Amino acid sequence: MEEVALLYSGGNDSSLAAHMLSKYYDVKLLTASFEILDSWKYAKESANIIGFEHEVRKFERSVIEEASEMIIKDGFPKNGINFIHRHVLSAAAKEYKLVADGTRRDDRVPLLRRSEIRSLEDMYGIEYIAPLRGLGYKTINKLATKIFKIEEGESGKIQHADYEAEIREVLKEKRFEVKNFFPSHKQSRVIGLR
Amino acid sequence: MEEVALLYSGGNDSSLAAHMLSKYYDVKLLTASFEILDSWKYAKESANIIGFEHEVRKFERSVIEEASEMIIKDGFPKNGINFIHRHVLSAAAKEYKLVADGTRRDDRVPLLRRSEIRSLEDMYGIEYIAPLRGLGYKTINKLATKIFKIEEGESGKIQHADYEAEIREVLKEKRFEVKNFFPSHKQSRVIGLR
Repeated sequence: MEEVALLYSGGNDSSLAAHMLSKYYDVKLLTASFEILDSWKYAKESANIIGFEHEVRKFERSVIEEASEMIIKDGFPKNGINFIHRHVLSAAAKEYKLVADGTRRDDRVPLLRRSEIRSLEDMYGIEYIAPLRGLGYKTINKLATKIFKIEEGESGKIQHADYEAEIREVLKEKRFEVKNFFPSHKQSRVIGLR
Repeated sequence: MEEVALLYSGGNDSSLAAHMLSKYYDVKLLTASFEILDSWKYAKESANIIGFEHEVRKFERSVIEEASEMIIKDGFPKNGINFIHRHVLSAAAKEYKLVADGTRRDDRVPLLRRSEIRSLEDMYGIEYIAPLRGLGYKTINKLATKIFKIEEGESGKIQHADYEAEIREVLKEKRFEVKNFFPSHKQSRVIGLR
């Protein structure tokens, strides 16, 4: 089977994406880390529990710093998070011929536009796969709940390895009120197989 | 497993969609027929070959007539085909709680807009699933070729049960030049499992 690198946070979405892709591909999970927190450990734990190979890719702290500046200037996180996501996808595209993520139909962030997908695929000669892109949150949550044991909680409280965790930390260091930029929302973490 | 109704033409895309969905759902294939051609038979043949339950849903010829009028007026098929697709999806949504199709990332037609998906799901209380929506043509063709034996040919020549076949027939009856509305393109039909 061909190898696909899937960006992985340990949450519902990327775990379900891994499960779906594993029907057709040899799935390798990648978690980005920016030298701010060790939240990648939670992703590795979840990856091990659901039985996938997992690796961490270290990036410079400056990527999160730059994204945080964008977020502070914008007053909302969309562009900053997309900036990080493109950075990480591009790095994966230099290593792997197939690169995937767990973005879903209802996601606004992170989200590649059609032109960004085309440029990513053409620039690196890769295939980009977003297996949840045609599934709504209800469908995804029902499937994930059937397959995984899931821990749910407010963002910022649950142990989760998405970009938000490290951005929050940088905003705190800069003495910004995190909740002004990230409204409270539910996050999930996969803690077992059913 | 929950039952999902997948709109099915016998081609690459809807066959791969069936294969993907079957990991999580009891997949029932549906092919629309508008009393113009018996092209649904090719879809049934392909469905049987790949081992899925298949049913035909008959619709009034007037649906294709109305779509053809739109296509003649527009000079291109997009809106007419989307009109038929929405009609068929809505009918399936009255029968099934989960409704799927094989539309893919690079498809312009048929394609539901985000607002159309929301209205379909809300109006009928269903989930709409498009499992190929996050996959490009290259990824889909590689996967389909691995799983299925495929016959390829020019549109209008290959035996295929998509809406185009019956629209072409109506345009011919009305003495229009079909090629003015449907530029020649490749179509595929699944004729076996590998």
